Amino acid sequence: MISTDLAIIGAGPVGLFAIFEAGLLKMRCHLIDYLPKVGGQLSELYPKKPIYDIPGYPSILAQDLVENLLEQAKPFHPGFTMGERVEMLEKRGEADFILTTNMGTVISAKVIVIAGGLGCFEPRKPVLSGIERFENGGGVNYMILNPEQYNGQKMVIAGGGDSALDWTIFLSDIVEELTLVHRSENFRGAPDSVNKVMELAGSGKINLALNSNLHSISGYDRLENVELIHNESNEVISVATNHLIPLYGLSPKLGPIEAWNLNINKSAIEVNTEDYSTNIPGIYAIGDINTYKNKLKLILCGFHEAALMSHSAYQYINPGVKYTMKYTTVNGVTEF
Amino acid sequence: MISTDLAIIGAGPVGLFAIFEAGLLKMRCHLIDYLPKVGGQLSELYPKKPIYDIPGYPSILAQDLVENLLEQAKPFHPGFTMGERVEMLEKRGEADFILTTNMGTVISAKVIVIAGGLGCFEPRKPVLSGIERFENGGGVNYMILNPEQYNGQKMVIAGGGDSALDWTIFLSDIVEELTLVHRSENFRGAPDSVNKVMELAGSGKINLALNSNLHSISGYDRLENVELIHNESNEVISVATNHLIPLYGLSPKLGPIEAWNLNINKSAIEVNTEDYSTNIPGIYAIGDINTYKNKLKLILCGFHEAALMSHSAYQYINPGVKYTMKYTTVNGVTEF
Ligand SMILES: Cc1cc2nc3c(=O)[nH]c(=O)nc-3n(C[C@H](O)[C@H](O)[C@H](O)COP(=O)(O)OP(=O)(O)OC[C@H]3O[C@@H](n4cnc5c(N)ncnc54)[C@H](O)[C@@H]3O)c2cc1C
Ligand SMILES: Cc1cc2nc3c(=O)[nH]c(=O)nc-3n(C[C@H](O)[C@H](O)[C@H](O)COP(=O)(O)OP(=O)(O)OC[C@H]3O[C@@H](n4cnc5c(N)ncnc54)[C@H](O)[C@@H]3O)c2cc1C
Repeated sequence: MISTDLAIIGAGPVGLFAIFEAGLLKMRCHLIDYLPKVGGQLSELYPKKPIYDIPGYPSILAQDLVENLLEQAKPFHPGFTMGERVEMLEKRGEADFILTTNMGTVISAKVIVIAGGLGCFEPRKPVLSGIERFENGGGVNYMILNPEQYNGQKMVIAGGGDSALDWTIFLSDIVEELTLVHRSENFRGAPDSVNKVMELAGSGKINLALNSNLHSISGYDRLENVELIHNESNEVISVATNHLIPLYGLSPKLGPIEAWNLNINKSAIEVNTEDYSTNIPGIYAIGDINTYKNKLKLILCGFHEAALMSHSAYQYINPGVKYTMKYTTVNGVTEF
Repeated sequence: MISTDLAIIGAGPVGLFAIFEAGLLKMRCHLIDYLPKVGGQLSELYPKKPIYDIPGYPSILAQDLVENLLEQAKPFHPGFTMGERVEMLEKRGEADFILTTNMGTVISAKVIVIAGGLGCFEPRKPVLSGIERFENGGGVNYMILNPEQYNGQKMVIAGGGDSALDWTIFLSDIVEELTLVHRSENFRGAPDSVNKVMELAGSGKINLALNSNLHSISGYDRLENVELIHNESNEVISVATNHLIPLYGLSPKLGPIEAWNLNINKSAIEVNTEDYSTNIPGIYAIGDINTYKNKLKLILCGFHEAALMSHSAYQYINPGVKYTMKYTTVNGVTEF
């Protein structure tokens, strides 16, 4: 069992900065995120776009901000459980919480910080009858966690955005056969990636099924066959494959958090702006996932919330201990 | 008369970032600061020290942060009145305020934002009988605003910190005669500057009076003579000069702000954390100068306060107008 001071649900920019603020107060953090990589919306939705309203950065690429926040948190050696979703939260007593993920990982913590943004990014799924049958280990996956498992395999990727293009390019080198299916003729991804995919198709390294949709899937124990249908001709072709990866993007869902007896208002957790605590002592909510009068869903606001939360969490963990804040400029940052 | 949407008292980091946040909402700003340069405590007290808790900057020199904030504010072309202290605040009606500075500058504004930090930095003054007589244009100054005015003049500088050293070095080139008086034998400034001053003294370009204090000053219409006394020997020497510049550092004072009928608590202005408004509608207080439960005097907190204040100020100026926040990443920053 993982044991920590602060368990932070969500490794978006606000969760990452909370590591630093908690670290200044000598509290350890462990972060859990359903996505395989840190950065939340910034890394998932707009990594290469500039943000203009991070104070002190006239412009910074979203992914660069994430890297800098990670770097800033480094002296405090946070733990990470990535690619897992927190499903259960149990309060056993004051400063005594247990979290459990969908993969069975158990984390014990003194304080829970929900920095879950818009919620868990859930994959958008194609409407295909019987698809659930193949979801858990049966050949259908909505994210690629271990690309090596596709070594020498036959696979179908569906989608037209950057994710579908990037994985097609990456995997084309190691698979035996790869078919990329996209409902339109035009891709939404970076022009560079589109060109590269076109080249791969031209040279026969991959099969491209444009203007086509997934039509049906079948298999006995696991996926064995995928049928594709052409939008205009309605022609159906059949592809023998053990792997189907629909990459239709992610949409956020509050999900399990809704069942934790927190005060929820329009998919956000109500907090007290004195310290961003929720209605349950020891549980805080910071960043996009919280709500209060005049809330702005801005990264810079989440940073402030992380700072005030940390000072309150320190008091919650160490009741009665008097703490005087010291400036980093004066005291530096002490690694632990 | 200067006319603006937001008059911001204080050009520290928080006042500077408020320009940007207000600008996103198409509101114009005019800043007033008693110091001759922007940056508040950062530029005045620790320009060359690294700050470690600006989110997204594992480390940044205070002065660099100030430069970046100025750069970020640039598209919104703020106005500045520097080297003047706001003395009077008058509310003539809703969204109708008048500020007056010690130099008689008058600014009309729809909203007042007090970002005055710890207050006005007031020079520490030497205890010398009759010194006030020479203060306003009589030869005694506590800051150097226009160094050119000392061209070809005889002057005395008193002090042992960076300011005294730096100005001595800078002015030694243009004055006829310069005496630097310091009560100890050791300077508190940067070693480089100390060496340079010692060289200047060695080569006779300046006179150095160490272990000495200001003893008395005299003159008819304006300053004509300064007497120095040696700490140990009690020997008194007399220097004929029209200019005395004591540079004993600055200490902050809330000053005139105390008389504006705001709710003050321990030298800070009480605000509502919903929007950082004060007890007087249309007047906000952000950054170090405000207080509320769990307030942290941190730069990053002032940034958040500036954002929420701006949205509230927009509503105050445009009552009933519905505004939907847009992300900078999506909408960019539109200069005006
Ligand atoms: C296109 C776009 C442009 C934007 N531009 C700007 C801008 O210019 N300026 C600005 O300030 N903001 C901007 N934003 C908003 C900004 O991205 C968010 O404010 C910010 O990402 C919030 O950070 P966060 O850490 O609170 O949450 P998020 O970044 O949403 O991260 C939350 C993380 O929590 C994880 N999570 C949730 N629930 C669970 C669970 N049960 N178990 C495990 N993990 C979970 C999610 O997977 C996610 O990774 C923009 C947003 C978008 C979409
Ligand atoms: C040595 C030191 C180290 C620090 N280290 C850190 C750190 O690591 N991290 C951190 O977050 N913070 C740190 N701080 C605190 C930080 O500097 C302050 O939080 C920050 O400066 C507050 O910004 P501000 O804009 O609110 O006010 P200030 O920077 O104080 O600026 C206020 C300005 O208002 C002006 N003013 C006031 N009244 C008037 C008036 N009536 N008329 C005209 N002008 C007026 C003043 O001249 C001043 O320039 C440190 C402070 C010090 C002294």
